Amino acid sequence: MTSAPPKGPNGIGSGAQNLIGYDIVFSADQASIILDIGPQHLNRNGSLHGGIFAMMLDAAAGYTGSLVLSKDGTAPLVTLSLTTQFLAPGVGGRVIATGTYKGGGRSILFADSELRDEAGALLATASGVFKAVRKRTET
Amino acid sequence: MTSAPPKGPNGIGSGAQNLIGYDIVFSADQASIILDIGPQHLNRNGSLHGGIFAMMLDAAAGYTGSLVLSKDGTAPLVTLSLTTQFLAPGVGGRVIATGTYKGGGRSILFADSELRDEAGALLATASGVFKAVRKRTET
Amino acid sequence: MTSAPPKGPNGIGSGAQNLIGYDIVFSADQASIILDIGPQHLNRNGSLHGGIFAMMLDAAAGYTGSLVLSKDGTAPLVTLSLTTQFLAPGVGGRVIATGTYKGGGRSILFADSELRDEAGALLATASGVFKAVRKRTET
Amino acid sequence: MTSAPPKGPNGIGSGAQNLIGYDIVFSADQASIILDIGPQHLNRNGSLHGGIFAMMLDAAAGYTGSLVLSKDGTAPLVTLSLTTQFLAPGVGGRVIATGTYKGGGRSILFADSELRDEAGALLATASGVFKAVRKRTET
Repeated sequence: MTSAPPKGPNGIGSGAQNLIGYDIVFSADQASIILDIGPQHLNRNGSLHGGIFAMMLDAAAGYTGSLVLSKDGTAPLVTLSLTTQFLAPGVGGRVIATGTYKGGGRSILFADSELRDEAGALLATASGVFKAVRKRTET
Repeated sequence: MTSAPPKGPNGIGSGAQNLIGYDIVFSADQASIILDIGPQHLNRNGSLHGGIFAMMLDAAAGYTGSLVLSKDGTAPLVTLSLTTQFLAPGVGGRVIATGTYKGGGRSILFADSELRDEAGALLATASGVFKAVRKRTET
Repeated sequence: MTSAPPKGPNGIGSGAQNLIGYDIVFSADQASIILDIGPQHLNRNGSLHGGIFAMMLDAAAGYTGSLVLSKDGTAPLVTLSLTTQFLAPGVGGRVIATGTYKGGGRSILFADSELRDEAGALLATASGVFKAVRKRTET
Repeated sequence: MTSAPPKGPNGIGSGAQNLIGYDIVFSADQASIILDIGPQHLNRNGSLHGGIFAMMLDAAAGYTGSLVLSKDGTAPLVTLSLTTQFLAPGVGGRVIATGTYKGGGRSILFADSELRDEAGALLATASGVFKAVRKRTET
């Protein structure tokens, strides 16, 4: 079961999400980040840029943490630390990063994420530490 | 002293570099990644997206490793692992990530990087492990 | 199914293993590191020292990588990078770290590990990057 | 200038410190962890066990964070995340890990550390995220 992706104060995704062009999909307790690789996502070696791996893995783990704190995934978090391991290059097609909550509580949360290609091959993993921030009033 | 930024096989920067819009500047032994923050780089909290931090820090550390292997910084590397620590949010203006070679050799290289704002405040740090790859023939 | 723990050239465990006093147990494709917490393992706050967490997680992931390269788990590896996340303190009793192979190949291997207490509560996780080294002749 | 190392409630170092046998030395704003490598610190390959690297780097960074919060370095912290990069093996003699405060504040602190041998060669680096904990009453 999926829910609508979270929106910013202006009702659309963040600037960075729109720039990269990824989608966010929620299940009850996991967030997935979906990207169709295009030439604008490639590094100088012609494969998916490591920074875009990191961006997707950060978002997948972070939104998964938000889902722990709020059913609609809008509880804001900041990333304190993110470690990404790059197992294999992403060369094209659709890639999906999915987060898993590992532990922690109302202040500090630990969440991991994995990024796989369409065939299910594991391309990258990440471990993140996140800190809950008090929600700003959005008018 | 700076040198020209490295180009891909077609004489321009990578797709990801162009998409994000960062510049690459080389000194003799360090690479710097420079970005003017715009709304397209922001996360849902209105500050620089953690994934763009990671992208800049990865590129700064990786190109610094390339400079160890090749004077013009074109020796290709893949990132095996990148750990990013997020110290403070980036809220606007220009940010610069600069790499520092830490150790390793012809096969495995270790390089760190720091990302600072225009005032010199430290916003994020990273530690990376990179693996040299044999250069493909570019025709 | 478990096999005997690996021994060093002199037929006993490493000095560090003996100093800390942990046991190593192998299944077909995972290594587990088992420790009964004593006062000699505690930090200044009276809980299991983070460095001992890291030692157990490193050994669990590393030996799991060795099992990928050699059925008896004796293929030597060096750790290139290890990231440990500390979810909850270890306050006593028995703790077990178990590794999981994630990817890579004959040269570079990626393996994770988790450390749990007797009740199964997750206390810490780790992600490691390892490099296979040519085995020294042991006479 | 150095100060006396911090003691636990009973006036001696922690159990883990005594087990491994390292010393702690403070300057005004940095903690150093000093170890004379013996056979009890070695791994199955005959070099300093990665877990002892991690223990020393964790302690150096953590005590450096404690020095930011308290002049005598006794402010208790817990490690949330520690990433260690292993650049070169430690084969004997004295090794020293020294911490450097990087940022953060009263709740979350970021500190790095470096471990060098007697000749000053860099053997390992670490980046840590720490959380201040309210001091328990020690009677």
